[in-house]
Amino acid sequence: MNIREEAIRMRMAAPAMAACSIEKRNLALRLIAEKLEASKDDIFAANALDMEAAKEKGIPQAVQKRLKYDEGKLRDSIAGLNGLAELEDPVGKVTLKRELDEGLILQRVSVPIGVIGVIFEARPDAMIQVASLCIKSGNCAILKGGKETANSNRVLFGLIKECAIKAGLPEGCLVQAELHNEIDELLKCDSEVDLLIPRGSNAFVRHIMENTKIPVMGHSSGICHIYVDSVFDREMAVNTIIDAKIQYPAACNAVETLLVKRDIAGDFLPVMARAFIGAGVSVKGNAEVNRILSANGIVPGGEMADDEFAKEYNDMAVSVKLVEDVKEAVDHINRFGSHHTDSIITDDAEAEKYFTSMVDSAGVYVNCSTRFADGYRYGFGAEVGISTGKLHARGPVGLDGLVTYKYVLKGNGHIVGDYASGKKQFRHKDL
Amino acid sequence: MNIREEAIRMRMAAPAMAACSIEKRNLALRLIAEKLEASKDDIFAANALDMEAAKEKGIPQAVQKRLKYDEGKLRDSIAGLNGLAELEDPVGKVTLKRELDEGLILQRVSVPIGVIGVIFEARPDAMIQVASLCIKSGNCAILKGGKETANSNRVLFGLIKECAIKAGLPEGCLVQAELHNEIDELLKCDSEVDLLIPRGSNAFVRHIMENTKIPVMGHSSGICHIYVDSVFDREMAVNTIIDAKIQYPAACNAVETLLVKRDIAGDFLPVMARAFIGAGVSVKGNAEVNRILSANGIVPGGEMADDEFAKEYNDMAVSVKLVEDVKEAVDHINRFGSHHTDSIITDDAEAEKYFTSMVDSAGVYVNCSTRFADGYRYGFGAEVGISTGKLHARGPVGLDGLVTYKYVLKGNGHIVGDYASGKKQFRHKDL
Repeated sequence: MNIREEAIRMRMAAPAMAACSIEKRNLALRLIAEKLEASKDDIFAANALDMEAAKEKGIPQAVQKRLKYDEGKLRDSIAGLNGLAELEDPVGKVTLKRELDEGLILQRVSVPIGVIGVIFEARPDAMIQVASLCIKSGNCAILKGGKETANSNRVLFGLIKECAIKAGLPEGCLVQAELHNEIDELLKCDSEVDLLIPRGSNAFVRHIMENTKIPVMGHSSGICHIYVDSVFDREMAVNTIIDAKIQYPAACNAVETLLVKRDIAGDFLPVMARAFIGAGVSVKGNAEVNRILSANGIVPGGEMADDEFAKEYNDMAVSVKLVEDVKEAVDHINRFGSHHTDSIITDDAEAEKYFTSMVDSAGVYVNCSTRFADGYRYGFGAEVGISTGKLHARGPVGLDGLVTYKYVLKGNGHIVGDYASGKKQFRHKDL
Repeated sequence: MNIREEAIRMRMAAPAMAACSIEKRNLALRLIAEKLEASKDDIFAANALDMEAAKEKGIPQAVQKRLKYDEGKLRDSIAGLNGLAELEDPVGKVTLKRELDEGLILQRVSVPIGVIGVIFEARPDAMIQVASLCIKSGNCAILKGGKETANSNRVLFGLIKECAIKAGLPEGCLVQAELHNEIDELLKCDSEVDLLIPRGSNAFVRHIMENTKIPVMGHSSGICHIYVDSVFDREMAVNTIIDAKIQYPAACNAVETLLVKRDIAGDFLPVMARAFIGAGVSVKGNAEVNRILSANGIVPGGEMADDEFAKEYNDMAVSVKLVEDVKEAVDHINRFGSHHTDSIITDDAEAEKYFTSMVDSAGVYVNCSTRFADGYRYGFGAEVGISTGKLHARGPVGLDGLVTYKYVLKGNGHIVGDYASGKKQFRHKDL
């Protein structure tokens, strides 16, 4: 397939896709849900081929779990599609309506972004989720899933596209890329593609960000912090931190660095370290931390130099450092963090306020686990990714992040000359 | 000055600037307004040096008018500053408040973007406007004005910075770049600068867009169209089109291409062309248009080949082409336009609907001049630029475009494990 030709065709189809009624878009989602049920034997057969290949290649068990598409995941996909069809239309919302002057009405109306390229990890449910978010938001999409689920993706994409066309969406609204070199072609389509959303490893996302002029939404790293300012409830503090580390260590919103206020470290650090070690987490402190651990008979899992704290483990390990106060904690986070999600444990209102206003991250949390940074948990229905950039969309990105707006101005022969000459004056009255 | 060092310092100052109260930010604006009045002799003296140099260099009269800063422009600047101080705070707005579960409250709060670089044309009032928009929105700013007003800029920047500090804003909140090579340094500061806003010639803006990894907001070209679908009021149609062309031909929102429905061209085109020529506008049709003009005794100002329509004159000239219907007009605009602002003249509701929904531009207008695309005319107080990109901000960009948001989540020891295990369920109740 020639990606540029497909992208050019899609660019031309995008206005028609954007103009499709919400009834057609929701119908497509419901048809996909029905078709998933009706085609489940084909889907499971294709997935079995992917699973066999994964076993042959010796892909780790934990990853194989992600590749697997079974009855349970099918239920979730169908529930997700029907739930998405119930959600309010993100397109056509009037977010500003203003009378500029008599008979001259300005409206700001939400519209789809246009053509979006999404490159996502090998997970059959991701194909369904990404495609359905793009359909609901009226966007054309070029979809490239991970190669380890190539067979599953092909079957799923085929039925998704079939249902989209059956619902009356334009022919060119969805395209699947299957080859890795097609990603490189896609990166060059900056005249045709409005937005790229890459998901996957840090190195992969960084590669995309550095090799395209297309705007990119996503995150390369997730270096999340928890700063313990006061241990007003020791069990709560320990539980929250353990959850943030071990509930899903490979996730971008898992905590990587624990900062502890120096004046509570002597009491809190040994308890926390024992909890970590008991949960199978390796504790890597700087020299100061390790001295306290050793004095309490705890063997550190390694030693961090003070400039090594921009470290994302994605694994059962955590960096630990002491800071003088919330100010030093914030400086550390803003310097070493990735502007993803950072949490403070405190019952001090001043420290909480300082932390939430000064930490420059998409998520700033108080007394809870960083693992809540997720579109589903935020109540967005689903997410297309998490953005650590500051423009357009920040944090978990749901349907809202897949639309932009246009200004529609309607007059009756209004000319600027009349206002420049003083013959007429603007009213600027919000309606 | 070492721009990178300044940018690093600014990056560290940005959270403190973002946390400054609206009282301090408004005080800064009011102090600047007072100081402008008190320092007007110094400002006019500096501006006189710039004007002398401009005359010596033989800079055209029209451009000299832009460089000039006089009593009238001072009044406008002071009124603009006091008006901006009256506007609602764009920072700290809660745009979503949701109970995820008992005691776990999510808020989405607007926050400044952080560090913004603005490179703007030689106009002393632009320095004041850009700096004041950045102050009001709580952003740190690196400002680089056109070199032709270097003396005026230096005096103005000096007093703006002095007033900002006096109002209690952080020392590093504003920096002025004065040398052209500092722009190249600035383009490399992608770890420090969150957003660049370049204003000026197409070639200059394109150069910025192509040579930095920093997100860029703005527009390189403004190829605006008017499509005449039905001439239900000939005088209105002609007046509107003439205004769009001649009211300020050098502006990005001036019309560059007129599209006329073929079945009305025989009647309308000669009238329109005579109006253009009477106003001093050169009419450049394609072969079909020029045949009609010639048959009516009108001499065309040139001939356009059918692939030459991506043409921005910024001058007293207009391209003209016939189309079969609104569909062909929209296809032409989406292909040759720059997604800036396009207008239809019609009394047909179907054509209007098709045009406004299918034209993929920041502004889609009905029966009015394209020249309305402007932050002041939209009632935004002022604008920092006009964006033809689709992400973050589109069209005229005022204070709203200078903020982003963060998610603040406050709990009481909430952990994700409880929801993953089914022990607890999310409520997702909007408050």
